[in-house]
Amino acid sequence: MTEFVINSATIRKQWELQDLLKACKKRGLKRVSIWADDTDKLGLVETTKILTDYDVRVFGFNRAGPLIGSNNEKNKEMFDAARKRVDQAFELNADHILIFSGGLPKNNYDLVNVRAQVEEAIGLLYEYAFPSGVKLALEPLHPMLTGDRTVIASLSHANKICDGLGERIGLVVDVYHVWWDEMLFTEIVRAGSTNRLLGFHVSDWLIPTCDMVSDRGMMGDGIIDLSRIWKHVKKAGYDGPVEVEIFSKKWWAEDPDFLFDIAIARCNDIFS
Amino acid sequence: MTEFVINSATIRKQWELQDLLKACKKRGLKRVSIWADDTDKLGLVETTKILTDYDVRVFGFNRAGPLIGSNNEKNKEMFDAARKRVDQAFELNADHILIFSGGLPKNNYDLVNVRAQVEEAIGLLYEYAFPSGVKLALEPLHPMLTGDRTVIASLSHANKICDGLGERIGLVVDVYHVWWDEMLFTEIVRAGSTNRLLGFHVSDWLIPTCDMVSDRGMMGDGIIDLSRIWKHVKKAGYDGPVEVEIFSKKWWAEDPDFLFDIAIARCNDIFS
Repeated sequence: MTEFVINSATIRKQWELQDLLKACKKRGLKRVSIWADDTDKLGLVETTKILTDYDVRVFGFNRAGPLIGSNNEKNKEMFDAARKRVDQAFELNADHILIFSGGLPKNNYDLVNVRAQVEEAIGLLYEYAFPSGVKLALEPLHPMLTGDRTVIASLSHANKICDGLGERIGLVVDVYHVWWDEMLFTEIVRAGSTNRLLGFHVSDWLIPTCDMVSDRGMMGDGIIDLSRIWKHVKKAGYDGPVEVEIFSKKWWAEDPDFLFDIAIARCNDIFS
Repeated sequence: MTEFVINSATIRKQWELQDLLKACKKRGLKRVSIWADDTDKLGLVETTKILTDYDVRVFGFNRAGPLIGSNNEKNKEMFDAARKRVDQAFELNADHILIFSGGLPKNNYDLVNVRAQVEEAIGLLYEYAFPSGVKLALEPLHPMLTGDRTVIASLSHANKICDGLGERIGLVVDVYHVWWDEMLFTEIVRAGSTNRLLGFHVSDWLIPTCDMVSDRGMMGDGIIDLSRIWKHVKKAGYDGPVEVEIFSKKWWAEDPDFLFDIAIARCNDIFS
């Protein structure tokens, strides 16, 4: 049976972490993916306590980054902040920590250079994280977000970065960001054959899409061939959960229990 | 000296084709890129007449496609319409005709299948166009438009399609659609080494981008490293013009002469 996980961003406007954990427990979900906003608000001790109380473990921890600023001093600050997030992921016993490279820093439009800086910073973060056992997860975001969110815009780029490192780095396939890629299936196989598939995030692409960040659809409401992608991801060796991550102004305005139940029902239809 | 071309879409809300041709002549621009809307309104005879009157030739003709509908009958209709556009490009003595594959047809979310159909249709259109000498130009559009505009979302996919055909098909590099691609420069070299670079379209990527279709920026107002991309395109052997194609509600509301002059001034700054 497929395991399902809710990413706390999906209900971030309605619920505190505690409410989400309660809802997970009620429905028998054993893991959750959370954001640093959640832990920052509660503190690590309290977060760990409520995770234990509700018997829910952390799957993905969002996130380390952005990594590159407009000068060396800022880069250092950002790298230190990213290291702290790795420490927190370790404390939380998360399966992996998401790496968020960030987009182009202010007044630096040299994408080649920024990508080189990002790759270097990921290498250093990998070295830092290695002894702890925390796995780094690269998540390519949609190319419409390259300028202001992350310069890693494709699975092939993420795979290439992993090639240069080792076994404690991998990638997350978020269907929303990569469904359009004509190399999608070959890059999934490439990631699977090196045991790099760390997560599988789902939502859907709506036509029309009215907001580039917060108009993702519920699985089944859009045009992504979800079951086919899932088949390929499984075939490539992924044995982790399906993680629901929907950034949506529409869904953020809904009753969170209703949203939760619909999401799980759709997941059961499509990914079981 | 670099040649500049205005794509009529840039001033489509303000001017008729005739006004644009007059403005081109006044500024010494010898070529223009036009849309089938322009020629449909005037008829081919009148279009050809005013082109001759103003001594302006057609560079790119937009467009043949969309190519794939939701059933065979629709596909046949669409293919016939595309062939007519090829005939018109020939009549207009256009340098090339843009191929617009279209996105996913209604109720067919099988992207792999739709892409296969598109590739087949392009092959057939290539055979049809070959004797006339009209060159087909594939223009990969940004992956945010894969669902509803075109399923060809990268230069690597466009290059792959060209590989299977011959010398009278090539591609247009539109910076807005491909600037984010980490394989941008290698794919430009690949296209150049097979004489496939048929056009170079410019605008800019704005942060934030408020509309996925009609919020392109004036060159220099956004974050695309335009001069670097131009350097690579030239180095790869492209010797054609720089074509200004700005879809923008903001610029469509401006005085067209002002817009025209700004565009040329920016082009002179960046691409000379």
